Amino acid sequence: LASRLPQVGTTIFTVMSALAAEHGAVNLGQGFPDFDCDPRLLDAVNAAMRAGHNQYPPMPGMPALRDAVATKIEALHRYQYSAGSEITITAGATQAILTALLAIVHPGDEVIVLDPCYDSYVPNIALAGGVAVRVPLTPGSFRPDFDKISAAITQRTRAIVINSPHNPSATVWSAQEMRQLDDLLAPTDILLISDEVYEHMVFDGAEHQSAARFPGLAARAFIVSSFGKTFHVTGWKVGTVAAPAALTAEFRKVHQFNVFTVNTPMQVGLADYLQEPAPYLQLPAFYQAKRDLFRRGLEGSRLRLLPGSGAGSYFQCVDFSAVSDLNESDFCQWLTREIGVAAIPLSAFYGDGFDQRVVRFCYAKRDETLRAGIEKLRRI
Amino acid sequence: LASRLPQVGTTIFTVMSALAAEHGAVNLGQGFPDFDCDPRLLDAVNAAMRAGHNQYPPMPGMPALRDAVATKIEALHRYQYSAGSEITITAGATQAILTALLAIVHPGDEVIVLDPCYDSYVPNIALAGGVAVRVPLTPGSFRPDFDKISAAITQRTRAIVINSPHNPSATVWSAQEMRQLDDLLAPTDILLISDEVYEHMVFDGAEHQSAARFPGLAARAFIVSSFGKTFHVTGWKVGTVAAPAALTAEFRKVHQFNVFTVNTPMQVGLADYLQEPAPYLQLPAFYQAKRDLFRRGLEGSRLRLLPGSGAGSYFQCVDFSAVSDLNESDFCQWLTREIGVAAIPLSAFYGDGFDQRVVRFCYAKRDETLRAGIEKLRRI
Ligand SMILES: CSCCC(=O)C(=O)O
Ligand SMILES: CSCCC(=O)C(=O)O
Repeated sequence: LASRLPQVGTTIFTVMSALAAEHGAVNLGQGFPDFDCDPRLLDAVNAAMRAGHNQYPPMPGMPALRDAVATKIEALHRYQYSAGSEITITAGATQAILTALLAIVHPGDEVIVLDPCYDSYVPNIALAGGVAVRVPLTPGSFRPDFDKISAAITQRTRAIVINSPHNPSATVWSAQEMRQLDDLLAPTDILLISDEVYEHMVFDGAEHQSAARFPGLAARAFIVSSFGKTFHVTGWKVGTVAAPAALTAEFRKVHQFNVFTVNTPMQVGLADYLQEPAPYLQLPAFYQAKRDLFRRGLEGSRLRLLPGSGAGSYFQCVDFSAVSDLNESDFCQWLTREIGVAAIPLSAFYGDGFDQRVVRFCYAKRDETLRAGIEKLRRI
Repeated sequence: LASRLPQVGTTIFTVMSALAAEHGAVNLGQGFPDFDCDPRLLDAVNAAMRAGHNQYPPMPGMPALRDAVATKIEALHRYQYSAGSEITITAGATQAILTALLAIVHPGDEVIVLDPCYDSYVPNIALAGGVAVRVPLTPGSFRPDFDKISAAITQRTRAIVINSPHNPSATVWSAQEMRQLDDLLAPTDILLISDEVYEHMVFDGAEHQSAARFPGLAARAFIVSSFGKTFHVTGWKVGTVAAPAALTAEFRKVHQFNVFTVNTPMQVGLADYLQEPAPYLQLPAFYQAKRDLFRRGLEGSRLRLLPGSGAGSYFQCVDFSAVSDLNESDFCQWLTREIGVAAIPLSAFYGDGFDQRVVRFCYAKRDETLRAGIEKLRRI
């Protein structure tokens, strides 16, 4: 059987989590919380199940949840989406991104991604019959390089995928950078997929610059978010896509023949929970405290915090060049096996495996877990 | 924006459910139960959430659930799948089928479907870059016509999709027919996607002839099933794929970049529930009683039960030619608006909209609902 994805193995996140489990290591690799969500959210889901919300919801998602999403976007970004025709509930952000690409990419179309990027984007583009065009972010700073992006645009460019807060670098796009993207795309028909799953994790008083804030971008964008990341329930697999009606119509044509629809009790529970006063507003302070705990801990180690990394998301990149000559992948193996802490090599996010002796830690962990990890990392 | 699916509108199920709601009609159209699942299943999911099973499960699914699936298949069909490398948990059967097609179809490959068929198959094939080849089932009886299937096979045939118990006709393949398929495919490399979501709804003492019972078929098959249909929780969106390790490896490459993984609390709850003595063994008697209630009710009406229809699934096809000259679609509109009962036109399952004055009713409904529907249908 000829593979549709000959380059692809098992995702690095699964590989490192399995290795962490095997060696009893503190798992600061794969991005997921090791703590529980608000029990009121569980109460809401349980109540939904008991009330009989166990059959197919409407294909685009429960109206109450779509309303809550539209209300939230308007409150935060002053952009109005129609809950009826412009918001769709998805089985997580990954499904949203694949579905958007399947809906818009025709065979041979090019889609620009900014390297390093999340590991699903490029296989997703291939599955949609497209060609991924990898444009590097500025080495070291991970800032978008608009000259390079501009140079990569051709007649065949159908879309560009961006991601802020950024996985893996944990950098955040500025309003100025979003405006530059807007200016660059304005004269084109290029669509935008804006992966904003870490939208509520932006620190130090900065604001998340959603594509929804820039009307020129919003008019061409699929804006993707994730309840799993926002409410500490990554295993529930509920996400959203906001997009103008014409794009949403094409998105839903594919969505209905991919998953058809998304878990009803979780949707009803999330909709109820979102009636509470904006539970996501606590996230920046919550995660900033964890970031700072982790950073302070590393100050006593020989690992070096990467400048700029940690402005958003729940990741922190760290330079290990002062302590090891290993490549990133071997370093992560060694760190897991010998030191007892799992991390993710940044090279896994590059098309060419570019290696800069940097690894990514996830600090979405209980303070005890972070302290246990720090103690081990200080022994290096 | 040029559509990837120019032919596609909103699925007929959504359209008819919306119309039923608008007119307060008894909804015997879209296939879903209007009754609750076993409360012990809800208890199991709630317990899973409270125990903290809310983060990403392993990518292919929770091991306990995969074990339970492998155990069930072995008990029912005497075929051993490895839970580790041959069973994958999916976000429902539709996602399973799209994912299988994305994993195996290369641009221009042909995939045979048997007309009439479920409405996701053909768009799924198109999204995977393939060409759907529609081979009609025998008109009237809906039996597979192996001469026609054989004639449709070309060098480019990558796969065939079958579905027994069959939606929409509610017929069931015999062991003899499965053997004929096995013989037909034996000299070829053609893969099989066997949609067996109604596997536990086969009546009158007959047995479900899973592809797993025919080693020649099992060796080339993705066998798809659905917990939603088996346990009356269509809104949970949890399904399974069983396939030989080499096929599963390709399936998972795509799966991990489509949904990545599937709702953790539902998986844990289902795995716990499946420890009870085979809860699905009660299904044939349960649904046969509903089928018979519905059939007896229609005996007093001018609608005619279609011979052969109702052997499996939770559907019953009915010929309305004695009462109306309308086409199926208009008849369903009329039936919903004027009589107050929603049904699905069979023409929606045909590539060419073939119209035989037959509609599909779903009897997965409370007995009161069925009685209310019957009373209205008798007024025609
Ligand atoms: C889909 S598993 C990985 C979670 C994640 O987003 C990450 O670790 O980058
Ligand atoms: C996916 S909604 C439709 C449910 C169903 O399988 C049917 O009615 O045929």
